[in-house]
Amino acid sequence: MAALKRKGRQTKWGHKHLLGLRELSREEITYILDTAEGFEQISTRSVKKAPPLRGKVVVNLFFEDSTRTRNSFALAANRLSADIIEFTKKSSSVSKGETLLDTARNLEAMGIDIVVIRHEAGGVPKFLSRNIKACVVNAGDGYCEHPTQGLLDVYTIRKIKGSLDGLKIGIVGDIAHSRVARSDMWAMTKLGAEVILVGPPTLMPGEVGRLPVQVSYSLDEVIEQVDVINMLRIQFERLGGNPFPSIREYSHYFGLTVERMKKAKSDILVMHPGPINRGLEMESEVADGSNSVILEQVTNGLAVRMAVLFLVNQAAAMKV
Amino acid sequence: MAALKRKGRQTKWGHKHLLGLRELSREEITYILDTAEGFEQISTRSVKKAPPLRGKVVVNLFFEDSTRTRNSFALAANRLSADIIEFTKKSSSVSKGETLLDTARNLEAMGIDIVVIRHEAGGVPKFLSRNIKACVVNAGDGYCEHPTQGLLDVYTIRKIKGSLDGLKIGIVGDIAHSRVARSDMWAMTKLGAEVILVGPPTLMPGEVGRLPVQVSYSLDEVIEQVDVINMLRIQFERLGGNPFPSIREYSHYFGLTVERMKKAKSDILVMHPGPINRGLEMESEVADGSNSVILEQVTNGLAVRMAVLFLVNQAAAMKV
Amino acid sequence: MAALKRKGRQTKWGHKHLLGLRELSREEITYILDTAEGFEQISTRSVKKAPPLRGKVVVNLFFEDSTRTRNSFALAANRLSADIIEFTKKSSSVSKGETLLDTARNLEAMGIDIVVIRHEAGGVPKFLSRNIKACVVNAGDGYCEHPTQGLLDVYTIRKIKGSLDGLKIGIVGDIAHSRVARSDMWAMTKLGAEVILVGPPTLMPGEVGRLPVQVSYSLDEVIEQVDVINMLRIQFERLGGNPFPSIREYSHYFGLTVERMKKAKSDILVMHPGPINRGLEMESEVADGSNSVILEQVTNGLAVRMAVLFLVNQAAAMKV
Repeated sequence: MAALKRKGRQTKWGHKHLLGLRELSREEITYILDTAEGFEQISTRSVKKAPPLRGKVVVNLFFEDSTRTRNSFALAANRLSADIIEFTKKSSSVSKGETLLDTARNLEAMGIDIVVIRHEAGGVPKFLSRNIKACVVNAGDGYCEHPTQGLLDVYTIRKIKGSLDGLKIGIVGDIAHSRVARSDMWAMTKLGAEVILVGPPTLMPGEVGRLPVQVSYSLDEVIEQVDVINMLRIQFERLGGNPFPSIREYSHYFGLTVERMKKAKSDILVMHPGPINRGLEMESEVADGSNSVILEQVTNGLAVRMAVLFLVNQAAAMKV
Repeated sequence: MAALKRKGRQTKWGHKHLLGLRELSREEITYILDTAEGFEQISTRSVKKAPPLRGKVVVNLFFEDSTRTRNSFALAANRLSADIIEFTKKSSSVSKGETLLDTARNLEAMGIDIVVIRHEAGGVPKFLSRNIKACVVNAGDGYCEHPTQGLLDVYTIRKIKGSLDGLKIGIVGDIAHSRVARSDMWAMTKLGAEVILVGPPTLMPGEVGRLPVQVSYSLDEVIEQVDVINMLRIQFERLGGNPFPSIREYSHYFGLTVERMKKAKSDILVMHPGPINRGLEMESEVADGSNSVILEQVTNGLAVRMAVLFLVNQAAAMKV
Repeated sequence: MAALKRKGRQTKWGHKHLLGLRELSREEITYILDTAEGFEQISTRSVKKAPPLRGKVVVNLFFEDSTRTRNSFALAANRLSADIIEFTKKSSSVSKGETLLDTARNLEAMGIDIVVIRHEAGGVPKFLSRNIKACVVNAGDGYCEHPTQGLLDVYTIRKIKGSLDGLKIGIVGDIAHSRVARSDMWAMTKLGAEVILVGPPTLMPGEVGRLPVQVSYSLDEVIEQVDVINMLRIQFERLGGNPFPSIREYSHYFGLTVERMKKAKSDILVMHPGPINRGLEMESEVADGSNSVILEQVTNGLAVRMAVLFLVNQAAAMKV
């Protein structure tokens, strides 16, 4: 494996945690993507196993429901021969009132090597990383970051388009409450793309003026110009019952319909972080259409997460 | 292992899915049972492991509660050295409104090799098998089929009686709502047994006249004639609060009591798919008595599920 | 590994179950601790794996919530290369009304080698051990015993103090409802320590006069004399809403405060079985202070549980 052969050379990755993409350089992000390329082929083999994390323990510490991210990390850990401990809020001592830090320190005291954490509060992964010795990988924190999603998105674009330099990318939806939008924005702009955030003014974050992005309130205007369009999920479970005056109105202005796709470039990439609300963020014909790379995103997520687990573990080993 | 040595010869199994027993031939069912025989001895070794599915990933996609079937598949996968992903409705994105097909496609995009699915709606495994590339194994769908239960039942009978040809087998209880009864009936009749469905008229399925079986409304009449009696579970969790005018009356007419057992052949096999409602479908003395093969069924279930996982994976590999 | 080399010699351990510490001799407890010492170093290796339980299956049969004990057993099993089946009440057939014994017998029929059980009713592990052939390890039963907790507590003390002979140890809190207190008391007194139970009279067990311990109702009196102080957790989840007339009053008299620690020996060991109610059983400064060995307890728990799984499996193999 290319990734393993590089061990002898000077590594371009020195972090034992992956907390967000904002603090990473273009070189560091590129290094993760290159490492993921080396791991991608493992998943195409008949025996989908490699030994680099054998005897290591990864804990999936998820305080929010998840299918794809949790399973993707579990499979990534499996493929690298690590053991995985699944932690869910419901069957744990958090129900006995234990603090998050005590839970984490206890897991660490059991010899956990990597903590993959998702939490509804922003900043929890960073807090953990300062208080435990194990590696911490952010699997989504509040509205802040979801770095492996950002990485798999740029990995998918780079794989198809060759490079992100000079690409125009639209990110559409509830930007204010989206950690995916934030991680995407950092990764995409660092790799040379131009990002346009699209959504109703009420769903734009307050800090948007200070970000290295453009803003548009009209998907119709943006759809014609972009090389990639990432349709965010409407997160009903976070927004409460009535996020918009009217779902139908939202869908009318910001849904990716077959009609709207007619104005797009013929080779536009249609992305979605999943799970899709079919008929809302996009029509099923678009989700399952030839421009859609939604399932490729999922497949690439595995390679990216293998790379992240491999690299943080390597960095931790070199610091000891 | 005999099963592995057969690889070089012409295989008698060509299906990458196991959806039901209705569509299988006598030869195909026999081939699964023979393969299971080869796997049975692995479970008696000190090291209960064999390598054929190493690096493969099996997902347990259970939309209904289960101890024995879910764990049996997990253990079967483990023994063949596969990795297993446990999916439960409660901790997943189904709670975010994702469609079943999107959930399955996402798991598949992560490189899952075999999906073991249980669902409250009949036909879901078939639907999945038409829409994803991974192997699909039906672990129970609505009132339709529970093929690995049917297979382990005939495996258990064949192991003790030598053959099913000419045997008389009673299946007793709520036939209308039983997927076990349906899978049993197909497997047993294809292997040459004569099946008598026994229960109150209200719990007989409408299509019973078109099935290759006899029907009786009297357990007392049937118990004297049969070589095997399979007592179905009363599924309170499916039937709602009041399935019968009177549980006591049901139990009086259709429960397997010590008294009733006195009329049975001395070598009758007493079966139950579990979990037992002791004192209802049968008295504890019968469940734990010398004619009971209920725990053998569980043990054989493991060998049968190893065979099924092995065979569908082999068929998938040969089609690539 | 020292533990493995001993195999050829006459073993000092002949039990295929670990139900409690009350029935063990000083020699047997010491033998478990010595075996755990041999396993401790595995957890400090880069590859935290040893092969002795390869191909064996351990089931975690937990009827009460748990993070640390459940995960600790899972990790211990992983490190010995066993497969682990996680059983939780919520996703199982117990919700279908299956009896505990039927659940256990079914798991056993699937070829489980070791059942690790936690149950709210005292005596359940013993009951199981008399009715199934698999090894049974008690992970906590009602108010009776939690033997691996007792073992890891004495392991931790022995590791730091060299021996328990002649040590004075205080156990503080709700003694009446604590299985930890009971297992601790047996292990500590058998290894030569003097145990003082400390708490309000209402939380002392009725049988206290017949136990080989002293009793005190004043932490202030005891704190000055003891070499080790074990602060039990207030188990709100078991006691209902109002365990004490006043939490504040309890904490005032029986909480381990910074102030109270000033009266203690300078090398006192502060222990807690976790999870901690910070500010209640002890102040955070004490929990995280230099006398605290709370996280060492967790780390040692892994080595002790590896030893227990290893030894019961060895005893079972020798009896076959």
